[in-house]
Order: sequence, then structure tokens, then C-alpha cells
Amino acid sequence: VGPFHHLTFLTDYGLEDSFVAACHGVCAQIAPDARIIDITHLIPPGDVRRGAAVLAQTVPYFPPAVHVAVVDPGVGTARRGIAVAAGGSVFVGPDNGLLSWAVTEAGGAAQAVNLTNSELWLSEVTPTFHGRDIFMPVAAHLACGAALASAGDEIDVRDLVTLPAPVSRVRDGEAEGEVMTVDRFGNVQLSITKSDATRIGVLSGVSVLVRWGHRQLTVPYRETFGAVAPGELVAYADGSGLVSLAVNGGDAAQRLALPPGAHVRLAVARRS
Amino acid sequence: VGPFHHLTFLTDYGLEDSFVAACHGVCAQIAPDARIIDITHLIPPGDVRRGAAVLAQTVPYFPPAVHVAVVDPGVGTARRGIAVAAGGSVFVGPDNGLLSWAVTEAGGAAQAVNLTNSELWLSEVTPTFHGRDIFMPVAAHLACGAALASAGDEIDVRDLVTLPAPVSRVRDGEAEGEVMTVDRFGNVQLSITKSDATRIGVLSGVSVLVRWGHRQLTVPYRETFGAVAPGELVAYADGSGLVSLAVNGGDAAQRLALPPGAHVRLAVARRS
Amino acid sequence: VGPFHHLTFLTDYGLEDSFVAACHGVCAQIAPDARIIDITHLIPPGDVRRGAAVLAQTVPYFPPAVHVAVVDPGVGTARRGIAVAAGGSVFVGPDNGLLSWAVTEAGGAAQAVNLTNSELWLSEVTPTFHGRDIFMPVAAHLACGAALASAGDEIDVRDLVTLPAPVSRVRDGEAEGEVMTVDRFGNVQLSITKSDATRIGVLSGVSVLVRWGHRQLTVPYRETFGAVAPGELVAYADGSGLVSLAVNGGDAAQRLALPPGAHVRLAVARRS
Repeated sequence: VGPFHHLTFLTDYGLEDSFVAACHGVCAQIAPDARIIDITHLIPPGDVRRGAAVLAQTVPYFPPAVHVAVVDPGVGTARRGIAVAAGGSVFVGPDNGLLSWAVTEAGGAAQAVNLTNSELWLSEVTPTFHGRDIFMPVAAHLACGAALASAGDEIDVRDLVTLPAPVSRVRDGEAEGEVMTVDRFGNVQLSITKSDATRIGVLSGVSVLVRWGHRQLTVPYRETFGAVAPGELVAYADGSGLVSLAVNGGDAAQRLALPPGAHVRLAVARRS
Repeated sequence: VGPFHHLTFLTDYGLEDSFVAACHGVCAQIAPDARIIDITHLIPPGDVRRGAAVLAQTVPYFPPAVHVAVVDPGVGTARRGIAVAAGGSVFVGPDNGLLSWAVTEAGGAAQAVNLTNSELWLSEVTPTFHGRDIFMPVAAHLACGAALASAGDEIDVRDLVTLPAPVSRVRDGEAEGEVMTVDRFGNVQLSITKSDATRIGVLSGVSVLVRWGHRQLTVPYRETFGAVAPGELVAYADGSGLVSLAVNGGDAAQRLALPPGAHVRLAVARRS
Repeated sequence: VGPFHHLTFLTDYGLEDSFVAACHGVCAQIAPDARIIDITHLIPPGDVRRGAAVLAQTVPYFPPAVHVAVVDPGVGTARRGIAVAAGGSVFVGPDNGLLSWAVTEAGGAAQAVNLTNSELWLSEVTPTFHGRDIFMPVAAHLACGAALASAGDEIDVRDLVTLPAPVSRVRDGEAEGEVMTVDRFGNVQLSITKSDATRIGVLSGVSVLVRWGHRQLTVPYRETFGAVAPGELVAYADGSGLVSLAVNGGDAAQRLALPPGAHVRLAVARRS
């Protein structure tokens, strides 16, 4: 693999401090011609699962790249740093599951190394800022064409930490899933794919019965939120091919009190 | 027109999700050498008018570029996607008025097309993410030198949706306008130009009578907010040449309870 | 010095308006091949001290660059605009102390000019937006190789405005400092260096007594926050080599009510 023209960068570092920029600076020193595309740096602090979901949903739209992701509450402890080759790209970050969904999305891990070669790190490594001191410099070297194997000891890809896949099953004409993400607009994205919805007869035009906790609602299933009146609830397949709930011009997550991780069931609504 | 070295990008997508990055990725695949300058992605969700104002005030400072703007509450409905040539640049986005003020600012629409040529789109188009699936790929192709006419059917520029211009008139020694934008600092930008202010005698050094609703205030008109004491109100012509109200070191919008769209009158204050 | 491939950019302009993008556009027109790395634009409005701290802590990680920083409550008043050569880089911004800590960090000012040559500015300069109209165009010209002396009249580097250095001293086995920054995670960064901590026996593994106001706490001093249980307080040397207080998985600034500027004393905790 490599060299790569592009790196991507996803963290929970926020935008008010200098953390992101210091990493950009490190990359600019090692790989002055590489380009960094920031995915987001507003992953809630330490929320590995959301980081994994956002990364996995974005990766398909990039050219082959070195993807650097750092949501790393265990920084400086025994958790490993890894680089994983998958689908023509390389993923660099902590071995805490953050990269796992994106690696699967990219076709699965072909090769992986434990980042043990300190020659690719900054000369001084601090225990709490591996994004700047280890992950970004390693990634920049890989972007410049360094071999994956040069970054450290090869590890069995089956030993990589993976996050459990979100609940998603179809049974008795009902699809069950969980809330994957809530976006800026308050749209509630479920782990139920458009094709699973199709299998149980949930097609554009029908009404769907949505059940969670002790609540249930009947909601129109349409192509887009603009198909219902402002302020109305609607279910639709979103830009990632996942069934989502929205309020046209409003905030569905707030209206329904549905946070990430909540379990939801979906079926075609039957007339009583 | 084209090819273009630069694209600009303005949306209401926010920064916490992967929406912006997915669009950057699409551009990187089609036009790897083009550069994207993000204008802002924090337009309040669906606020077409603010998007139009911010875009129009920024465009004069860019080199010729493909300007992609997406504030698109009607995505997936009958509203058209358009590309409009104006002043050596091209504007790409929904035909809902978002682009209209910037197009006017750039010298007016020279040519426009309805984005009907799906060969310039991503191979799979989702109904709710035209920014990623249609607007950005079309823009990237245009940046690479594709002819505007290749993006779709030509439409009469007089048929483009335009936002009504903000109220702005001078009468009987008084200038009337509305609040265009409130910025991060709480500065209240009015749709009254510096030159209209000059016409009614509002020049640096005078006091101005500001009236809105049932309220009125006398405020010094100065070159800059630093010309008054901290905590004091001041009127001045801002970086876009529009009369604005500020509190030195404070938040004028909050102090005056003046939201976007509010009507305001301005005149030289007379001694009673 | 120069030409430079990179510019960096730090302001209090925020991300919701077009201020940052207009500056990027100006740079793209003058120096189309230069790259801008945004450090942050979320310095609290007018907070020169925080801007200075963030800039100084980031600069060591960049290649030689033109560093543009604008936190400028005095814009349009008598304060000077300056460009300062230091350590192979150039710093451009208002002469209000904002640049001073970074200049010191870079090795001290070698040469400085008052930005008086309007030929390097935009043709029209507004009194409230020198970032766009003066600082960025000057910086872009310097990036293209213009001589520092071409930007204006040379000034004695001893006449540059400097911020007072933060309190930081060691006395009687106790280190005294102040809160430099609070970051996104709520980590409280003190102006006490790791090496000063070492001098008074504060090494990884000991307990430290932290005193401020009328409060005091005993906190473990460790390599990283992950070394204590979730929810526990910890002291450590952060990525900038400064002693910091954190809550593993939580917000130390909130828990301790320690804002920037607060005075704090640190010593090895003795058993009573």
C-alpha cells in the first residue's frame, strides 16, 4: 500500500484547543505534500462507539487514504497503537475498537501491526498525546510510502479489538435495531438497513409502527423528510442506507427522547 | 468557464457529523488537485436566508471558484438543483434562493443549468444527501473543466428562484433596514449601507438615533467599536460596508434583543 | 526568511460567520499555492491571553511558517499591526501581546516591523476587519517571499508589547503557578513545568497536595489520566510539559471550579 496523497483525521479533541492543529503541523513536517481531510473532531469525549460509527459511514466516500482516528480514553495505558491495512487504505489509531467498523466496511483487515517502531514517532513522546506524538507521525510516514511492516511488529488480525456490531435483526415481520447516531439535525439513525426494511414490507408510502420502551408511534415512511408537512415525524432511509426518524424542520431525537443505543422495533403498521 | 483551482463550501451540516467530510472525500476522488475552502457549516438548520447573506458577503474575497452551497430543507422534493455561472465563478446548489444574493453580488447570472445529467453524480443517489451525491460531484467535475452545459438542461436565468432583497431605503433623512446577520460577537449587521448612511448625514463622529419596535436609543457612530468605552454601544460600518451595532467587548444582539429580520430605522440624532 | 509553504491561522472569529473564510479567500488570491493550517478560531472573544497560550503551545509542532493570529479587541484604534521574525518563522498580528509568548517560544524576536506599507494590504481597508484587510494579505505576501522589511517600518524588538509571563516559581519545596488553559476535556493546565515538579520531588507515583484559595486536595501524580479509576482526580504532565489536573473520563475544571488565571500551589503530600 501507499504512498497516499490523502490522510483523514477523526478525533474527540474538539476545536477550541490546539490539539488538532499540532497534529496537522506534525504531518506538514513529515509529509508536506499530503492533504488532511478532517472528518470531525467533535466526537463526544471518549465516545469510541460514536467515533467508530462516524468513521465507518464516511470512509466509503474517500479515495485510498491513511485514516487516522483518535478517541482514546486509555491513552498511555497498556492498550496498543495499531496500523491496519484494509481495502487499499490504512487505518491508524488505538486498538480499542474505534477502527473496527471502518475496517470491516473497507473489506476487513488484510494486515496489522502494533506500533512499536519509535523511529517513526516524534523524538519526544508524552503519555497523553499519542495523536500528535505517535499516530500522526506514523501515519505521515505511511503516507510518504513507508511500508506498513516498518511501523512495528505484525499482529494477527484476529487479535484486533473489535466493537460488538450493533443489534440488527429481522424476525416475524419486524426489524429490531438500535439508535446508531443522532446528527446535528436531531435525525435518529437506526441500525436497520434499508434492505432489511424492504424485506419486511417497509417501502416508501407505507406507515410504519415504531416501538421502543413502553412507547409506540405510527409514522409515514417516505423518501425524504420534505415529503411530510413541517413539524411532522417521518421515517426514511438516510444517506448511509439506514432507516432514520426525522421531524421535518425539527429535532426527532429531542421529540422522541431517543438517545444513541436505545432499542427500537419497526414493522408495517396494520389497520386495527 | 473553468477549470477552477478552488471550490468553496457552505452548508448547514454542522461539524459533529461526517456530512462535510463525505463531501470533501467525493471531491478528492473526482478532483484530487482542487482545494476546498470551507466558508461555514454552521448555518442554522434550514436557514436559507442566513446562508444567502453569508455567502454573498464572502464571495467577493475569493478567486474565481466553484461555490457549493447547501442549505436545503426541500432536498429530495421537486425543487431543482442548479449550477449558475456569474462573474467568472460557478455557483452550485439547490434552486431555493440560497445562491441568489451571491450571484447578484458576482454580477448576475450569465448562464444556468438544471442539474439533470446524472453522469456527473455519484452512481448511487440518496434522496436526502444531494450535497454528497449530486452537488459536490457536479461541482468537482466543473472544477476539472467540464462545461456548464454538460451538467444539465439550460434554464432561463430569469426563472431562477431569488430571495427577496432585504428592506433598505432612505426617506426623509432616515434610513430604514433590517437585521441581516448577528455574528459570533453579537454584532448586529443592518441592511443599511455605509453610503446610504452617509447620504443622511451619518458620518463618523455624529450620534445616531436608532429606532425599532417601540424602542429607541441614541448611539455614537464611530469608525470601530474600540472607539467607545468597554460595555458601551456603538454604531459603525462593518467589514461588509453595512451599518452595524456593537457593544465594545460585549454582545449587542443580546443587549438590544435584535434578531435577524427585525426592522430598524436610523437617523442623525438632533438635540431637543 | 521565506518563502513559506505554510501559514497558520488563529483567531477569535468563531466558525459560524464568514470571517475565517474571507481571510482564506484573500490568501488564495495572493498566494494560491500556500497552505493554511487553522489552529483554532474559538478563542473566546477578545481573550488575548488564551490566544497567546494556545499559539505558543502549538508553534513548536509546525514547520517554518507565517503565523497569523488575530485576537484584536483594539482593532482600528492606535495599536500597531506587526510582523515579527523569530526562529525561522514570521508572526503577523496586532501588537497587543498576542504573539509575544509564541515569539519567545520560537527563540525570541530577531526583527520586527510596523505594518505601514499599504501596498501589501487589500485596496480597501475597513476599520474593524484588519484580519482580512491587512494581516492576511501581508502574511500571504510574506509567504510568497516578500521581504519582512517591505511590510513596513522596522521597529525595535524591545518595543513590542509583551504579555506578562504567567506566575511560575519554586520555593520551599512548593511550586506555585496559575491555570494556563482549560481544554475541551476540562483538563486544567498549570504554568508549572514538569521539570519544576521534578525539582520538588513530584514524580510519577507520588501523591501531591494541591492548594488554591481556601481549598486543598491530595491527588495522585501519574503518567496519564488512564492510570486512575474513572471519575478519579489525577495530576500529570500534559502534552505541553505542564502539570495538569484531570478527572479520568470527567471534567476537572468543573469539579474543582478552577478557571484560567487561578493561582495554585503544588507539593509532595506528606503523611500526617
